[in-house]
Amino acid sequence: MRNAFYAQSGGVTAVINATACGLIETARRFSLQMGTVFAGCDGIVGGLTNQLIDTAQLTTDQLASLRHRPGGVFGSSRYPLLDRVSHRDQYLRLLDVFAANDIAYFFYNGGNGSMQTAHEVASFAKEAGYSLAVIGIPKTIDNDLVHTDTCPGFGSAAKYVATSVREVSLDVAAMCRSSTQVYVFEVMGRHAGWLAAAAGLAAQCADNGPHLILFPEVPFNEVDFLARVKATVERVGYCVVVAAEGICSPTGEAIACDIGGVHSHGEPGRVGSALVKRIHEVLGYKLHWTLVDYLQRTAGHLVSATDQEQAYALGAAAVEKALAGESNIMLTLERLSDEPYRWLIGQVALNQVAGAERKMPKAFIDETGYHITEACRRYLLPLIAGESWPPYRDGLPDYPRIDLKISSAV
Amino acid sequence: MRNAFYAQSGGVTAVINATACGLIETARRFSLQMGTVFAGCDGIVGGLTNQLIDTAQLTTDQLASLRHRPGGVFGSSRYPLLDRVSHRDQYLRLLDVFAANDIAYFFYNGGNGSMQTAHEVASFAKEAGYSLAVIGIPKTIDNDLVHTDTCPGFGSAAKYVATSVREVSLDVAAMCRSSTQVYVFEVMGRHAGWLAAAAGLAAQCADNGPHLILFPEVPFNEVDFLARVKATVERVGYCVVVAAEGICSPTGEAIACDIGGVHSHGEPGRVGSALVKRIHEVLGYKLHWTLVDYLQRTAGHLVSATDQEQAYALGAAAVEKALAGESNIMLTLERLSDEPYRWLIGQVALNQVAGAERKMPKAFIDETGYHITEACRRYLLPLIAGESWPPYRDGLPDYPRIDLKISSAV
Repeated sequence: MRNAFYAQSGGVTAVINATACGLIETARRFSLQMGTVFAGCDGIVGGLTNQLIDTAQLTTDQLASLRHRPGGVFGSSRYPLLDRVSHRDQYLRLLDVFAANDIAYFFYNGGNGSMQTAHEVASFAKEAGYSLAVIGIPKTIDNDLVHTDTCPGFGSAAKYVATSVREVSLDVAAMCRSSTQVYVFEVMGRHAGWLAAAAGLAAQCADNGPHLILFPEVPFNEVDFLARVKATVERVGYCVVVAAEGICSPTGEAIACDIGGVHSHGEPGRVGSALVKRIHEVLGYKLHWTLVDYLQRTAGHLVSATDQEQAYALGAAAVEKALAGESNIMLTLERLSDEPYRWLIGQVALNQVAGAERKMPKAFIDETGYHITEACRRYLLPLIAGESWPPYRDGLPDYPRIDLKISSAV
Repeated sequence: MRNAFYAQSGGVTAVINATACGLIETARRFSLQMGTVFAGCDGIVGGLTNQLIDTAQLTTDQLASLRHRPGGVFGSSRYPLLDRVSHRDQYLRLLDVFAANDIAYFFYNGGNGSMQTAHEVASFAKEAGYSLAVIGIPKTIDNDLVHTDTCPGFGSAAKYVATSVREVSLDVAAMCRSSTQVYVFEVMGRHAGWLAAAAGLAAQCADNGPHLILFPEVPFNEVDFLARVKATVERVGYCVVVAAEGICSPTGEAIACDIGGVHSHGEPGRVGSALVKRIHEVLGYKLHWTLVDYLQRTAGHLVSATDQEQAYALGAAAVEKALAGESNIMLTLERLSDEPYRWLIGQVALNQVAGAERKMPKAFIDETGYHITEACRRYLLPLIAGESWPPYRDGLPDYPRIDLKISSAV
């Protein structure tokens, strides 16, 4: 009976620990077939440095609490292993650690870069004659993995963004005659506008915010945009703008602005502050803005129950697939119907997803380029459905300290 | 039987509509003693322009839904009536509108500026021989009104801030070895650090974030601050900084930074981006930051049940006090004990609170100047206690459209 290695990768989410919970709880149920589940301390870095966390040290209660815990309980990292030919040493090192810990199952929980790494590891192990099942488990709030209906983490981030935009729109609506007239809400999304699109769910009726959504997929036309802001303020009294951090000019350049030390494309606050500046300069409106940054990916207090359930189910399925002899695959979510939302877990070869990026389809952005279509709503609504509150203690979500010992010796 | 005028004033909150709900529901119960409750469209501005909203048009269900609805359903404004001698015309106009609508009760729901206005109105009416009961109902997320234990709106904003800081700290903790090492969280608070202090509740154990809180009450010493950031990163691996928007240098100057169009003291994002810039320049750390801005005052999805209950109770009590013949007072909350939290509603003369500002007491800021004391925790904890979820529909808090007719003719 051989052991498993589980690693969290890339930006953490509100539900990546739910995947860990599903995976480890399932492995414990299959304890006659799968040995110890080691988690990488800081993800794959722990695999390279032999900094492993024996998950048996988690009590049943601690393990169950991971379902609600945001962040990455074992630590995550952005450490891409490059190609296995030019970076052979790293792969040898990883297999050494795997061999020393009798690891036969590698679960990699991340986005498309991580799936590339997982594919390289699977290929290298095969070439080296090392028996290793490699299962990729999707995770990204960017929702940009191909061949899956959605990615765990996105539904919760989408719910947070849509809720926050709905709430802030009520605030601005109440004050717009004497105070803030334009509100700018910056969301994540360097290349794909899925989270910006989610804000489109916030409007409960015509003329509710958001009024203008700026997608990375649509070249930013400042003149047209400012005219629409003005028209919206004149018609509605106020204008709520949601902007993805990755919007670009028609020539592909980033929207420029100096916000003090954080200049490069995609840095937090860059787009929001630039839009505030331009709208104020040209139209003279009073503005406020928000930069939700990590809050949108870490809001355990407002997860989508659907997202959490899918995250957990994928962790559980990963164990079952690995024990069934599958390898070199990423698990996927397949949508069977929109309403009621029915889905099942499928799989795809890792090399089919590695490095690929799913942007918003044209059919999801309306003809103005500033809002979502009904087809997009139908796609998004099931993903944010359902509430799953964490336990509360002293008025706050209870995410108690979990001290984890790292074992580096075998 | 004469009518009442209710006006929302200043920045809206997650629970100001709960006060409106308590007030109107109670007035309906006392319908033999109090006539129509008119709400000012955009607060006092509606009183000056004779734009009144007859709240009888709210169905029972619509009225009940206000308990959970953020924003200001009747519209709010920042429109201070200046002193009654030099601005006599405004006061005459207001009394004309009151007389035309047979208004004998004026409920003003706001902060210390609004209490100044309420006092002027009460004095002017008395001098003019117009019978008017004036009751101030406290409201401000800034928590800076004197003679009251707390101000409705603050507890919910505090709960939002503490929750968000706790969650983002887990995110940063998971990634700090390979990604963001310092996180800056800007909160509201131009003169008083109550919301910054609330972030201090986020830590569940030693070395949890926030590690450094910057209060407006403590002069900002950049050299000392940067040394502490460095020491925290070296000890803990990361550092979460919470900064009130109003922090100042020891000479009282605003912390300077150009963030694109929003330059003046107190503009959103100014302090957060300035801190990010300096920390990066001097210490070289990778940073992220968030600007929660209006989200902290409008998060109906995460209100404090205690705050909501107090907001409602104050609205109800305002009607009872007015009918009992009280006038020229602001209602207050009086704390009887911390644990269990017991409170009752009291009152204070409007001229005792008008224009005064309650800052954080010295005993609430620890000796380092960067965190809260145990006394502060004891004060804050009851205010964020309890959860009160709004209804959800399609995955989002349900704040249905309420169309209100404005009656300007009498």
